[in-house]
Amino acid sequence: MTEQLMTGDEARVRADDRAHVFHSWSAQAQIDPLPVAGGAGAEFWDYAGNRYLDFASQLVNLNLGHQHPDLVAAIERQAGRMATIQPSFANDVRGELARRIVDVAGAPFSKVFFTNGGADANENAVRMARLSTGRRKVMAMYRSYHGNTTTAISLTGDPRRWPNEPADGSVVHFFGPYLYRSPFYSQTPEEETERALAHLEQQIVLEGAATIAAIIIETVVGTNGVLVPPPGYLQGVRALCDKYGIVYIADEVMVGFGRTGEWFAFQGHDVVPDLITFAKGVNSGYVPLGGVVISDAIARVFDDRAFPGGLTYSGHPLACAPGIATFEVFERDGILARVKDLGERVVRPTLEGWLETHPSVGEIRGTGLFWAIELVKDRDTREGLVPFNASGADAAPMTALAAACKKAGLWPFIHFNRIHVAPPLVITEDELRRGLDIIDAALVVADGAAA
Amino acid sequence: MTEQLMTGDEARVRADDRAHVFHSWSAQAQIDPLPVAGGAGAEFWDYAGNRYLDFASQLVNLNLGHQHPDLVAAIERQAGRMATIQPSFANDVRGELARRIVDVAGAPFSKVFFTNGGADANENAVRMARLSTGRRKVMAMYRSYHGNTTTAISLTGDPRRWPNEPADGSVVHFFGPYLYRSPFYSQTPEEETERALAHLEQQIVLEGAATIAAIIIETVVGTNGVLVPPPGYLQGVRALCDKYGIVYIADEVMVGFGRTGEWFAFQGHDVVPDLITFAKGVNSGYVPLGGVVISDAIARVFDDRAFPGGLTYSGHPLACAPGIATFEVFERDGILARVKDLGERVVRPTLEGWLETHPSVGEIRGTGLFWAIELVKDRDTREGLVPFNASGADAAPMTALAAACKKAGLWPFIHFNRIHVAPPLVITEDELRRGLDIIDAALVVADGAAA
Repeated sequence: MTEQLMTGDEARVRADDRAHVFHSWSAQAQIDPLPVAGGAGAEFWDYAGNRYLDFASQLVNLNLGHQHPDLVAAIERQAGRMATIQPSFANDVRGELARRIVDVAGAPFSKVFFTNGGADANENAVRMARLSTGRRKVMAMYRSYHGNTTTAISLTGDPRRWPNEPADGSVVHFFGPYLYRSPFYSQTPEEETERALAHLEQQIVLEGAATIAAIIIETVVGTNGVLVPPPGYLQGVRALCDKYGIVYIADEVMVGFGRTGEWFAFQGHDVVPDLITFAKGVNSGYVPLGGVVISDAIARVFDDRAFPGGLTYSGHPLACAPGIATFEVFERDGILARVKDLGERVVRPTLEGWLETHPSVGEIRGTGLFWAIELVKDRDTREGLVPFNASGADAAPMTALAAACKKAGLWPFIHFNRIHVAPPLVITEDELRRGLDIIDAALVVADGAAA
Repeated sequence: MTEQLMTGDEARVRADDRAHVFHSWSAQAQIDPLPVAGGAGAEFWDYAGNRYLDFASQLVNLNLGHQHPDLVAAIERQAGRMATIQPSFANDVRGELARRIVDVAGAPFSKVFFTNGGADANENAVRMARLSTGRRKVMAMYRSYHGNTTTAISLTGDPRRWPNEPADGSVVHFFGPYLYRSPFYSQTPEEETERALAHLEQQIVLEGAATIAAIIIETVVGTNGVLVPPPGYLQGVRALCDKYGIVYIADEVMVGFGRTGEWFAFQGHDVVPDLITFAKGVNSGYVPLGGVVISDAIARVFDDRAFPGGLTYSGHPLACAPGIATFEVFERDGILARVKDLGERVVRPTLEGWLETHPSVGEIRGTGLFWAIELVKDRDTREGLVPFNASGADAAPMTALAAACKKAGLWPFIHFNRIHVAPPLVITEDELRRGLDIIDAALVVADGAAA
């Protein structure tokens, strides 16, 4: 983009950003953040008027899309009546949102501890598990992301953890199921479930079951691959937790509130955890909000013993109001049903077709409106189109794929050798098909880089 | 309060809260959170119509008071144009707020990394210090609070840390200046400064200067006592940091944005840190927001090396908009000048008078609109009116003092044996005098518990 094309506004936005905004996860001199001018529904646009279908829902948080009128109205209304009040008071919207979340979580959940986002939700869930069990260690998966604060980044099983070590020394990583690249040499989902559970139990025993407070699992692993657990896996984890007195924490930060077509993704797996962590979709991230949904048994541990955690903005009214509106929209507009329908009727068959037409497509997998297309150099060896954790020139084929998508009007979610499909849950069927067509066309770039 | 006095609304709020909201820092069955119905300026009120002067500014965050019309309007406007956009894009209000913060911070600051609150601001400041120095250890004060996530609670030097240990193992605590209960047997502020610095240097040397990444200090220690550093202390810390290559982090979460009558409290001490952490006052907590103001030297470390930290809501537009409005209100209404004026002309002489009239008042100290009255059983021994970290029956005299304040229409900030004065910076002089009169009258309760 040249200077001539910039509006005065864009130039100012770009100048302020480059001079004064320090960006997440980046080498600051090597990025060129696009100034975004606006958004609506499943699209956003830049200052030059280029429109992008948002197939990442920003950071998989914008479940109800850009500028949903009901959420905007809820924020405006709450701002005018009570923007904030501190956590030790009772507040109408705080209490109502807690009740609604507990209602959809179902038994045995009774209470919600609100935080600012997913990282501190996981920090506090781990704290509850440690204090209620009297144990210290937490087991988390390789290929996972749980947040950026010290314990949350320690739980994380991807390269974002590496520069931050040593951090929380009481975290142990284990291998979860991943049939396409099975760590257990499995051939079928049934085998993967059986072997992954045997592996986990062996590691529990070797670590010392009585030292393990919690196992934390993204119900569907998000950024690290949209890894949907094979049938029976999560139930097996639940059984191991029961057998050894371990707290099962379901990290639903990315998949909670409809991404998979359920209120919580675990509800599609006939299993019930002890603690649920959430953020993002609870109010589409219009106001920072996260939290922990707590089983009654764990909540009661802190009836007469002080819970040693808290934060100024816990249960923030301005954040809770669009959370309540989210429930109203989901119910009125049948969001869960449409997610399941679009996922199975539109996305799955389209992506399955790419297995036939694109030699670079090694595997497709997903559920609801949450899918990954795993790109490979060679379908037989399954070698990734780019290496694990590739950057710079090593990542060139994926960078080119992203550029082709953007040029055609779609903002993709790309991670390592995968492109994910995670649009707002309110996307129209036409927009969804148009976006998939754009990816379909762009995959020619990936095919060219494959063997 | 009896059932008869409850409105239907209040009963519902209370029922939802008791059934479903898990509260910060509390034994859940031992609390009875007051449902708050509304607020404006320096007051809030309950459902029975009782009005309270908010002498705690909620959790010392509501610097511009309840429902400030400019902040509410900024939120409403931003909600309608762009509630949120993810951190890797450039955004107008994000860039403008960063520029304004850097402007008032002055040299050598160039960039802002936005977070959700104070805890993750401190987590990321420590991360920057560790990575830019290649060292791991961080020194923090006893009698301090830095937040609730793992590294932040490890930095904390008060009892909220205890149940969370072991956590970040690379934190070392040291004694800061506190002349009224000097750990160094000092008689004068000059002596306290000199001895506290000698103590700190000795501890740096014994820990191994080359192992220490950062020293983090609340510029004025907040919840743990409104401890204003004696003249020269912070300059001495700066000199030690320069001598040993240590990053100086100023935690301005509670005192930044006008609490002491400066943009940042360090500006009243002729000293410049390397990193500033902030939250609360930046937008009065109307939307969760915090951040790190970064010196240009440290920002440049991450020009060509990725910063390994981030969060979904970094630079959240809905949070930044009332931050910009905060600057506009401060400038238009001369907030900094009025804080200094009210502090010196009204609060200081009033509190000094209590040293004459109330035998329970051992010391008063503070600056701007941030003061502590330290209550003692006996002025000669300086034994606290209640023990350190008292609760239950041990804390009865302070609980009675709080009750007397509330009954008279003032919501106090009470911590251990202290009552703090931290009203919104927009409080009128009449309200301020009325509030101080209420505390004056309530102190008779404390006098009765003194020797």
